[in-house]
Amino acid sequence: MNIAVLGTGNVGATIGSKLIEVGHSVMMGSRTADNEKAKAFAAKFNGEASIGTFSDAASFGEIIFNCTSGVGSLEALKLADEKNLIGKIIIDLANPLDFSKGMPPSLSICNTNSLGEEIQMAFPKAKVVKALNTMWCGIMVNPGMINGGNHTTFVSGNDVEAKEEVKKILTSFGWDEKNILDLGDITKARGTEMYLPLWLSIYGATNTGAFNIKIVS
Amino acid sequence: MNIAVLGTGNVGATIGSKLIEVGHSVMMGSRTADNEKAKAFAAKFNGEASIGTFSDAASFGEIIFNCTSGVGSLEALKLADEKNLIGKIIIDLANPLDFSKGMPPSLSICNTNSLGEEIQMAFPKAKVVKALNTMWCGIMVNPGMINGGNHTTFVSGNDVEAKEEVKKILTSFGWDEKNILDLGDITKARGTEMYLPLWLSIYGATNTGAFNIKIVS
Repeated sequence: MNIAVLGTGNVGATIGSKLIEVGHSVMMGSRTADNEKAKAFAAKFNGEASIGTFSDAASFGEIIFNCTSGVGSLEALKLADEKNLIGKIIIDLANPLDFSKGMPPSLSICNTNSLGEEIQMAFPKAKVVKALNTMWCGIMVNPGMINGGNHTTFVSGNDVEAKEEVKKILTSFGWDEKNILDLGDITKARGTEMYLPLWLSIYGATNTGAFNIKIVS
Repeated sequence: MNIAVLGTGNVGATIGSKLIEVGHSVMMGSRTADNEKAKAFAAKFNGEASIGTFSDAASFGEIIFNCTSGVGSLEALKLADEKNLIGKIIIDLANPLDFSKGMPPSLSICNTNSLGEEIQMAFPKAKVVKALNTMWCGIMVNPGMINGGNHTTFVSGNDVEAKEEVKKILTSFGWDEKNILDLGDITKARGTEMYLPLWLSIYGATNTGAFNIKIVS
């Protein structure tokens, strides 16, 4: 499948590499078509990866991964151009972390709203699925790295079929279906985004980002 | 030890019962000394439990459990009277859930502040330890109910010795020391309180409150 990865940071490069590994064609999108990090990414994958603007990538992709930083996501998706998003699944991995007031970051949106909801509201003809935003990107694409892959990832979104598509991608990344918990509609993105302060505290207390939570009952 | 339990709801009754079971003397405090739920609680434990006002209980307790509803906690602790809190550990189990705008509740304090911090600021001579606020009360006092007791609970607070005291109480409740994660100072209460929306979403998706998270790495 042709997949757009918006964002050239660690998350975008990690997701893009995994998508290529499992057989997809990837275009990495950024603000400018000649982004150095995007060029370095594409150079590693001769021909299986291409690069372009946010709009080029969104036009190319049948599915769109939002791997931009949370505070820039809405602008990036506007640059991607609404017409390129119509009817498409946007898998939103971003967290609205605001580092402008120092560490630890606060959330620029929370409590009665979320970034996932903001994106869905801004692009009502796209199908936004919040996913994978509760862990370090190394775990996103390699759940088997810890606890034999036995830990929890969440999806939320308004479109049931879109969530099923996202679950297929997650299983192709190595996630066991029993560990993918569908929380409900896109308002449930609030919970997964508001988990970030606890994630950061656990990271601080344990000195590793290579952890996740497992729901036990 | 003489321990005060402020609050007569399910959390207070569950914590109070467990404290008695493990050998403590408990006074349950409420707004009025003749609270019916407090009387029913005390009646079950002839003599091992007493009841009184928030102030009576705080005066009695060497340690104080805040089991009041989060939006009422600061007022309850003011009624407990600052002089009864000096030098004492306040174990804060409350979450600032605001149900006034319907379901799901939002948080009345979050992001750059927390209820735990508000309590510590209001009573600077008390030693506030945030604990146990990330799960249903049945699990708080009976961790072995799920996953052989192997899941995670958090503590945060500014006073290291106070956190050690709280860890002792948690181990007396059945928590294995390796599953008690010290997140740091009281600002880390933000993360555990902001986890509540995710907790509520998981509860909604799984139809059980008898779950917890386990950190795996």
